[in-house]
Amino acid sequence: MPYEFKVVRRVEFSETDMAGIMHFSNYFRFMETAEHGFFRSLGHSIVTRNIETPVGWPRVHAQCDFKQPLHFEDEVEVHLIVVEKRSKALTYLFRLKKLNANPPVEVARGKITVVCVTHIDGKMSACSIPKELADKIDVAPTELVG
Amino acid sequence: MPYEFKVVRRVEFSETDMAGIMHFSNYFRFMETAEHGFFRSLGHSIVTRNIETPVGWPRVHAQCDFKQPLHFEDEVEVHLIVVEKRSKALTYLFRLKKLNANPPVEVARGKITVVCVTHIDGKMSACSIPKELADKIDVAPTELVG
Amino acid sequence: MPYEFKVVRRVEFSETDMAGIMHFSNYFRFMETAEHGFFRSLGHSIVTRNIETPVGWPRVHAQCDFKQPLHFEDEVEVHLIVVEKRSKALTYLFRLKKLNANPPVEVARGKITVVCVTHIDGKMSACSIPKELADKIDVAPTELVG
Amino acid sequence: MPYEFKVVRRVEFSETDMAGIMHFSNYFRFMETAEHGFFRSLGHSIVTRNIETPVGWPRVHAQCDFKQPLHFEDEVEVHLIVVEKRSKALTYLFRLKKLNANPPVEVARGKITVVCVTHIDGKMSACSIPKELADKIDVAPTELVG
Repeated sequence: MPYEFKVVRRVEFSETDMAGIMHFSNYFRFMETAEHGFFRSLGHSIVTRNIETPVGWPRVHAQCDFKQPLHFEDEVEVHLIVVEKRSKALTYLFRLKKLNANPPVEVARGKITVVCVTHIDGKMSACSIPKELADKIDVAPTELVG
Repeated sequence: MPYEFKVVRRVEFSETDMAGIMHFSNYFRFMETAEHGFFRSLGHSIVTRNIETPVGWPRVHAQCDFKQPLHFEDEVEVHLIVVEKRSKALTYLFRLKKLNANPPVEVARGKITVVCVTHIDGKMSACSIPKELADKIDVAPTELVG
Repeated sequence: MPYEFKVVRRVEFSETDMAGIMHFSNYFRFMETAEHGFFRSLGHSIVTRNIETPVGWPRVHAQCDFKQPLHFEDEVEVHLIVVEKRSKALTYLFRLKKLNANPPVEVARGKITVVCVTHIDGKMSACSIPKELADKIDVAPTELVG
Repeated sequence: MPYEFKVVRRVEFSETDMAGIMHFSNYFRFMETAEHGFFRSLGHSIVTRNIETPVGWPRVHAQCDFKQPLHFEDEVEVHLIVVEKRSKALTYLFRLKKLNANPPVEVARGKITVVCVTHIDGKMSACSIPKELADKIDVAPTELVG
């Protein structure tokens, strides 16, 4: 069962800041891009369209350790790894690797925890991950975490 | 009747790019900030909460002439001026002035046209500007356009 | 000689706003992405690295007509077309097409004018487009503009 | 000696996403805004202009716990608290409070560690915090952390 996903993104000019490097907040957007690609790889969308009860995935925790800066036009592999799966929550580890380095090097490592929620009468409350999704997501073997 | 609004914003670090200046796309966000402040100054919100029929305001046209760059921590006055008011649309002119220059200088001039829409059955269609809003918005005298 | 370039981008979650559609400022970022891809296709980078005199490309004008909204996960083809080439400036037309519509449909059309500048003693001044770049860029035939 | 700073920001439309709430990456931008205001409150700028040796402040760690969502036009107090001061690094705690709730409520809590660096021959290396800055920054009393 799937427990990882990789996506490659090139750093855009608009993602850099006056220090000449990618602004740190954009690392979190890169991670989210990998998460949404992961959901698509499962035949779904993070925005549930083909599921009986629509659910949302607010983030309850996000963190990142920045090891090396990223620059304009760097090619970055974002490697999502499912490290925890609970009835109502998922935690992903993200390893960001700069591919246009020789050899490619890990430049950042992040973690995001998301909670599955429904909206009832405009109020958001945590709920179990829908079975059709939960059945498709596994926790990665420890080796992957590195 | 109100036909203008001014807001002052300081350029954030995350709004700059590797050229050391504010990224051009953020000028449009500055303009929008002034528009939303304008609506609040009328006792409303661009997100209609206290109006019978909820309406939205998608942009149909946006443009900007950039005269001088803006840098981190520059203080920018965004001056919104209503230059056209039609039954279903508004056009704003925006004059962006760098206040921490001596004398303050116009660094950009933009224009945005928005259309009033309702969502019926998930489909967006143009509608008349609600009377309680339309009655509060006037077209600015020509002198203001400068 | 090259006068156009196409890039495909998927609308990210972080590029949408509470109206459920891509924020209008991001259309300008999509256009810029195509411009930078165009430069790479010429064997260069918008950030001149392999050119004798480093030049920059500040935007002096940007505009966009928005015809249809874009949503999360839409696939957008951004088609850059060089419509004007002067000694110190370029003007691009951009046609944004939503590919996951049947048939694909033009959702926006933009235009950006950039000026070639050098930085001497911290002061920016317009300069001729370096010959090695100018020689590689042509103006598109009128048919392309559509 | 200063060890805290507060800034109030209103959530912008462009900072929301299609879930109708502020995108999680923007919490980190709010935190940074408070940091830069903190530096200004000390008579400096995060972009050193009036210091002998120019230094930069790349982030090496950033995290956030999200407790409640923020919506368009919410007024958010961002409270920066210096929780660690080392010779070459600072760690800030951030408490984000939604002011337009009754009573105001903490909606998120973050932490950012920044390292002081110089650029020598294009290479970034950690360095001691310049004395004129270090002398102005203190670690907050434990009570503040809450």
